[in-house]
Amino acid sequence: MKLIIAVIQDKDSHRLIDALSDKEYKTTKLSTTGGFLKEGNTTLMIGCEDEEVDQALDIIKHKSSHREQMVAPISPMGGNADSYIPRPINIEVGGATVFVLPVDSFFQF
Amino acid sequence: MKLIIAVIQDKDSHRLIDALSDKEYKTTKLSTTGGFLKEGNTTLMIGCEDEEVDQALDIIKHKSSHREQMVAPISPMGGNADSYIPRPINIEVGGATVFVLPVDSFFQF
Amino acid sequence: MKLIIAVIQDKDSHRLIDALSDKEYKTTKLSTTGGFLKEGNTTLMIGCEDEEVDQALDIIKHKSSHREQMVAPISPMGGNADSYIPRPINIEVGGATVFVLPVDSFFQF
Ligand code: NI
Ligand code: NI
Ligand code: NI
Repeated sequence: MKLIIAVIQDKDSHRLIDALSDKEYKTTKLSTTGGFLKEGNTTLMIGCEDEEVDQALDIIKHKSSHREQMVAPISPMGGNADSYIPRPINIEVGGATVFVLPVDSFFQF
Repeated sequence: MKLIIAVIQDKDSHRLIDALSDKEYKTTKLSTTGGFLKEGNTTLMIGCEDEEVDQALDIIKHKSSHREQMVAPISPMGGNADSYIPRPINIEVGGATVFVLPVDSFFQF
Repeated sequence: MKLIIAVIQDKDSHRLIDALSDKEYKTTKLSTTGGFLKEGNTTLMIGCEDEEVDQALDIIKHKSSHREQMVAPISPMGGNADSYIPRPINIEVGGATVFVLPVDSFFQF
């Protein structure tokens, strides 16, 4: 038995919970906020058997949207500013952060 | 040291927390929602020594109400519908889902 | 990889999250309430490498305020009430309760 803790974006939570439910995973949803970015996110707890972990991870991976964001790079300090042309770069934000925790014992009362 | 994570029904949380407090268990309450049924539930985190786990589980078990719910069974497909008398059945819902997690170390600052 | 779960006071959460962010720790904040005292508290989840746990604990320790509270002691039952002078005592409240959990595997999608 494992306890999967997945921190995902709010906007992904509905379709992820639906997709997990379709495969009979039981999820519990915690309201959370990102500490650093203060962005709304959601934490899911998913209890499952060891052999069901990989499928759960695959579902989480496929339902957690990445988005690309253009950011302006910092211009190099002390460089030749005239010859430096700042070029916006793409970074990936979002996605999911997932911890798989060992479980000593599990009960359903 | 163990960390007990118990997902219970909202309506059981008050008397369960009281019962745990009576036995000196420290609980932390998280607001959660069931992913599938969207029902209001509550998650408790209870940190305790290994030898105190059984008593905590017993309290959770006795304070987590089950309720019986009548549901109409699906009629059998392709059977002789005339001779089939659907009989409502009782299923148990509610209760508690409990994970006991190992703890590497514990601090109180 | 470890998952640190820290239950702290609401009023400490902002400066603790800031201090953790300054050192590149990623935190996720859960809204929680103390079960027994019903006081507002906050639970932080912090995922980090094994060798980063001690520094995280040190930050939590230094940013979790204790406060001293004067309480009147209960007068001794059956004692000589005339000669008993109740003296308010200081107790420490607040601080942080911290669990360090082992992690089987960790993913960032
Ligand atoms: Ni896939
Ligand atoms: Ni019993
Ligand atoms: Ni120090």
